[in-house]
Amino acid sequence: MSMEWMRSTARHFRKYYNPDVGDAVRMDTNTNVLGSNPAAMRFLESSRMDLNDYPNTYSDNLRDALADLYSLERDNFVVGAGSDEVLDVAFKTFTEWGENVIVPVPSYTLYDYFVSMNGGKAYAVDLDEDFQLDVDAMLVPDGKMIIMPSPNNPTGNSFREKDMIEILERSKGPVIIDEAYGEYAGRSMIPKVDEFKNLIVMRTFSKAYAMAGLRVGYSVSNKNISDMMNCVKIPYSLNMMSEGAAIAAVKDQDFIKRSVELVNKNRGPLVSGLKKMGFEPFPSDSNFILARSPIDHEAMAGGLKGKGILIRDFGSKRRTENCVRTTIGTKELNDLLLRKMEEVISETER
Amino acid sequence: MSMEWMRSTARHFRKYYNPDVGDAVRMDTNTNVLGSNPAAMRFLESSRMDLNDYPNTYSDNLRDALADLYSLERDNFVVGAGSDEVLDVAFKTFTEWGENVIVPVPSYTLYDYFVSMNGGKAYAVDLDEDFQLDVDAMLVPDGKMIIMPSPNNPTGNSFREKDMIEILERSKGPVIIDEAYGEYAGRSMIPKVDEFKNLIVMRTFSKAYAMAGLRVGYSVSNKNISDMMNCVKIPYSLNMMSEGAAIAAVKDQDFIKRSVELVNKNRGPLVSGLKKMGFEPFPSDSNFILARSPIDHEAMAGGLKGKGILIRDFGSKRRTENCVRTTIGTKELNDLLLRKMEEVISETER
Repeated sequence: MSMEWMRSTARHFRKYYNPDVGDAVRMDTNTNVLGSNPAAMRFLESSRMDLNDYPNTYSDNLRDALADLYSLERDNFVVGAGSDEVLDVAFKTFTEWGENVIVPVPSYTLYDYFVSMNGGKAYAVDLDEDFQLDVDAMLVPDGKMIIMPSPNNPTGNSFREKDMIEILERSKGPVIIDEAYGEYAGRSMIPKVDEFKNLIVMRTFSKAYAMAGLRVGYSVSNKNISDMMNCVKIPYSLNMMSEGAAIAAVKDQDFIKRSVELVNKNRGPLVSGLKKMGFEPFPSDSNFILARSPIDHEAMAGGLKGKGILIRDFGSKRRTENCVRTTIGTKELNDLLLRKMEEVISETER
Repeated sequence: MSMEWMRSTARHFRKYYNPDVGDAVRMDTNTNVLGSNPAAMRFLESSRMDLNDYPNTYSDNLRDALADLYSLERDNFVVGAGSDEVLDVAFKTFTEWGENVIVPVPSYTLYDYFVSMNGGKAYAVDLDEDFQLDVDAMLVPDGKMIIMPSPNNPTGNSFREKDMIEILERSKGPVIIDEAYGEYAGRSMIPKVDEFKNLIVMRTFSKAYAMAGLRVGYSVSNKNISDMMNCVKIPYSLNMMSEGAAIAAVKDQDFIKRSVELVNKNRGPLVSGLKKMGFEPFPSDSNFILARSPIDHEAMAGGLKGKGILIRDFGSKRRTENCVRTTIGTKELNDLLLRKMEEVISETER
C-alpha cells in the first residue's frame, strides 16, 4: 500500500482477524453455543418485506421494543449495524481531532482502532493486578472520553460497580460502558442511564442473542446523549431484515435465559478441567475464560487448531502473557476441548 | 439538546428526512418502481443461514460476484452497509481534520454531512448554467478530495466524461464519482478504475437493484485505494442476509435491464406531460426528473401530499429555486401523478 493520502491517525491499520476457519470448531468468537437465535430465524423464514422501501430512519420499532424490555423510552436508544457502528458513532459525536480517549489495558482490541480512525488518541491505562479499574489513573485530566467493557474482554471479569460510578461522577466527558457480554453478568448499568449525564451503555445482539450474522447493536443513555448520537449516525443504517429479527429476538427472553443458564452451569466444570491441566484461569462473569497456559501459548493455540478447534491467542500481548481465551461451550464441547488440550500438552512435552 | 460535548464540525446536524408517509405513493425516494428485487426475495425466502456466525470480514463472496460482473478483481471493491457507509469510510480514510472536500452545488444533500461528521469542510462549487461541472473551479488548490454524483442528484443529468477525466488527471487527491443512479445512465467510470490512481466509483443496491431495505453499497477503485479503505472499514459491517441477497441480485441482470428499460420508455411521456402543464423539466439520465414548478413549489408538493403522492421539494434551495423532483414511475403511476398535478394547479389558481 502506498499510504500518502491516508488519514495520519489510521496509517498503522492493518486488515482485521479473518482466519481461514474451514470446518474448525470455533471457540474463539464467544458467540452463543446454543446456535442461531430461534425467534430471529422464525422471523426471517416467515417475513415478506418490501425490500425496495428504505428502513425507518432511526429504527424506531426496534427502539420501542428495547424501551419495553428495559422500561425506558425510545429516545434513550441509538441503534446501528452492530455495536461497532454505535461505537464509531459515539467517537464521531464526542471527540475532536487529537483528543484522548482513555482505554483500559487489557481490553477489547478494536477500541484503539475506533478512536484512531476518528482522529483521536487511545490513551492506555493499565488495570490493576486483579484486572480491576485503577480509578485515579483512568481520570487523567486530559481524557475527553472513557471507554471500558464490563464484563471485560479478554479477561472475563466485571468491574466493580462502585469504581464505575466513581468514574462517571468524576469524569468531565462521556463514559462508555460496553456491556457486550452484559447478559451473562446478570447486572447492568442500563437502569442508571437517566441518573448520569455522561453514561453510555453499549449492547450487542452478537453474543447472548446469537445473531452476529445480522449485525445489530445499540447504545442506551439519557435522551440528550442519544439525540446527539442519532444526529451523527448514518440514517437508516440498520437494514429492515435485521431490525425485524432483532425485535423478534427481544420478545423471546426465554432463549436468553436458557443461554445464560447453560454458560453458568458449564463454567465451573470447565474452570476445574483447565486447572487440573495446569492452566491458571481468571475469574469470569461472561461466556468465555481467559487462562494462562501451562505450555507455550502458540503451541497450545496452534496445536488445537491442528486438531480442529480454534481458541484465541492473547499470549504475545502485555498483561496477558502466555494466555489464551476460550468460549464456554456446552458440556460436550468443553469435554472435547479439554481432551484435545491434554493431547496438545502431552504431544508438546514429548 | 445541550451540545457542549459534541464534535464542533457536527453541531449543526439535525435529524434526517423522516416523513410520516402513511399510505402515500412514494415518488420522493427514486427507488425502483418494479418493486422488490425478485432474486433477493427468492434468496431470503429459501436461505437458512447460521445467524450465530459472524459474516465474512470483508464480504468476500459479494466482492467476487461484483468482480465477475465487471471483469475486475475482488480487491478492487469495498463493500458496506449501504453506499452511505462506504462514503463515510472514504472520508475517514482520506481526510485530515479541517481539510476541504470539494462538493458541487446542487448535488446530494448528505455529502456535506459525511464530510463534516468526519471533521472536514465541504467546499461548495457551483455547477454551470446547464448543471455541468465547472472544472477549473472544482480544482481549487486546497481541496484534499473531490466528490460528485453522476448522474447528479437532484438535477438528474450525467456530467461530461471529458470533464470528469480532466478533474481526475489534474486533482492531487482522491476523486469520488458517486454512480448511485449509474445503471440508468448506461455508462460508467468503473471500467477506468485501474487507469487512475485516484478514482473511486460508488454504487448502491438501493436504486435500480430495488433493495434499499437491505442496505448494501460498494466502491470500485484500484487495489491500493481499496486496500486503504478496507483497513478503515468496520470489520464485517455487512450482515450475511444482505450479502447473500446482493449476490443473488448481481447474478440476475435481467431484472436490472428490465428496470432500466421501463424508465427509458416512460421518461419521455412524463417529460412531455410536465411541459404541457407549464413545468420546466431538466435533462435526465436517471430514474427521476427535476422540474421547475409552474406554481409555488410548496403549494405543488404540499398539494400532492394532500392527494396521497409524495414528491421531493427542492424549491427553497439555491440553484433549484421553485423546483420539485419526482421519480419516473410506471405509465400508470406517471399518469396518476400528472392528473393529480393538474388538480393541484387548477385548485391553486382558483
